Amino acid sequence: MKRIKLTISYDGTNYVGWQVQKNGIAVEEVINKHLSKLLKEDITIVGASRTDSGVHALGNVAIFDTNTRIPSGKIALALNQSLPDDIKIVKSEEVSAEFHPRYTDCTKTYQYNILNSRVNFPLQRLYTDYVYYELDVEKMRRAAEYLIGEHDFKAFSSAGGQQKSSIRTIYNIDLSFEYLNLPDGANPSKRKEAENGDFLPKLVHITISGNGFLYNMVRIIAGTLEKVGMGIYPPEHVKEILDSCDRRLSAPKAPARGLTLLKIEY
Amino acid sequence: MKRIKLTISYDGTNYVGWQVQKNGIAVEEVINKHLSKLLKEDITIVGASRTDSGVHALGNVAIFDTNTRIPSGKIALALNQSLPDDIKIVKSEEVSAEFHPRYTDCTKTYQYNILNSRVNFPLQRLYTDYVYYELDVEKMRRAAEYLIGEHDFKAFSSAGGQQKSSIRTIYNIDLSFEYLNLPDGANPSKRKEAENGDFLPKLVHITISGNGFLYNMVRIIAGTLEKVGMGIYPPEHVKEILDSCDRRLSAPKAPARGLTLLKIEY
Repeated sequence: MKRIKLTISYDGTNYVGWQVQKNGIAVEEVINKHLSKLLKEDITIVGASRTDSGVHALGNVAIFDTNTRIPSGKIALALNQSLPDDIKIVKSEEVSAEFHPRYTDCTKTYQYNILNSRVNFPLQRLYTDYVYYELDVEKMRRAAEYLIGEHDFKAFSSAGGQQKSSIRTIYNIDLSFEYLNLPDGANPSKRKEAENGDFLPKLVHITISGNGFLYNMVRIIAGTLEKVGMGIYPPEHVKEILDSCDRRLSAPKAPARGLTLLKIEY
Repeated sequence: MKRIKLTISYDGTNYVGWQVQKNGIAVEEVINKHLSKLLKEDITIVGASRTDSGVHALGNVAIFDTNTRIPSGKIALALNQSLPDDIKIVKSEEVSAEFHPRYTDCTKTYQYNILNSRVNFPLQRLYTDYVYYELDVEKMRRAAEYLIGEHDFKAFSSAGGQQKSSIRTIYNIDLSFEYLNLPDGANPSKRKEAENGDFLPKLVHITISGNGFLYNMVRIIAGTLEKVGMGIYPPEHVKEILDSCDRRLSAPKAPARGLTLLKIEY
């Protein structure tokens, strides 16, 4: 018997999330089915992060135990032959029998992506939240700094999470953006304004890493930083929200499609 | 009566292409329906580029004539309220009654995107072709240089095009790539090889501009450059293919999903 760790990438658009639900197909369900068929064993994987419906992953992690003779490193390739296009295994490797993806200390990194533009460009729609009003990324950056470190993030979590403590440590929040390649032919890097005096369309990336996240925490942080970027909250208000431990003060959670679990490092 | 020019962005995944077909929904059909409803006139737009089924656009162009009192610049915004998420109008503007999007000289720019990786990452799948074998971008660049300039591109076009002459001018072909953000946490920009000695996953972009393109020309060029990148053809072979004017010597056309019409400049 050996324990295999899978690193998994998926497009969450068409799934009810990682975990099995009654109302649709779950990512873990699809992997269980294909793994069981491939290995001719009854496999139930245990995932590190139970991402919500519509959330994407570049590198979620799961484990399972098997007696297969297929070399550990080859399971990814074999499984990818039969998996659907929107779920692929990035890596398969043997780990110690004690390794548990949820009870082992780790750093999780998420990215929240925002299309900030007067036009909701179709090619970005599946992987971004759409914000019509101009976002001031520098203000969002200042607001995000209040969240770095060990804090009680109760104000930034939805009810329904299974964790007992709401104290978590955020190691870093990076705010970056890039201008969109525009069809009108102008080179956006040389311009500050679009032709009509409006702002230039951009993609904003919030990259956030920590030792764990509460239920909906990254999406509530993203929604709150969007309000700061739009000028609805001053950056300092984020500290007040944090200190209040009151969920009613933070913004509604931003949509699932903007969120991608980038990686989990043990 | 005024003539309006639309700049249009769409995700071609769910359409049979720009032009009305019997076997599914066409992009122009959707826009005609929504425009006619908005303006309360029977509108039939005339497109600049009849992109194939599955091909995307950041900025295709179309015109129509109307008596509407809605200000020309506001039509985009009004139309976007009702259009589906995968078709949006980037800009609407009045042009002279003589302007015709197909018979006016222009520069068209297309981008062909390739995911070059051992893993077919799900988040890129809708907008890239997938190539499993490592692509040598420098070789592709050398091969592409033979295509720049005025040439008879008969060897790079499918039968069925409506154009009389197969002579076109390619102004530029740019080959670029970026490493993918990897879930294993390593910073790809500092590494040349993945952990297992394999190559690092990358996105390759072929950006090509010219005064017009023959039927399937960009996709056949992309397919041919992929073969060069894989080492199947030496770069010099592209010149032989070009000189032969023989379609049988070039590669099969690369898939539609990798192709995006970036812009049309008049």
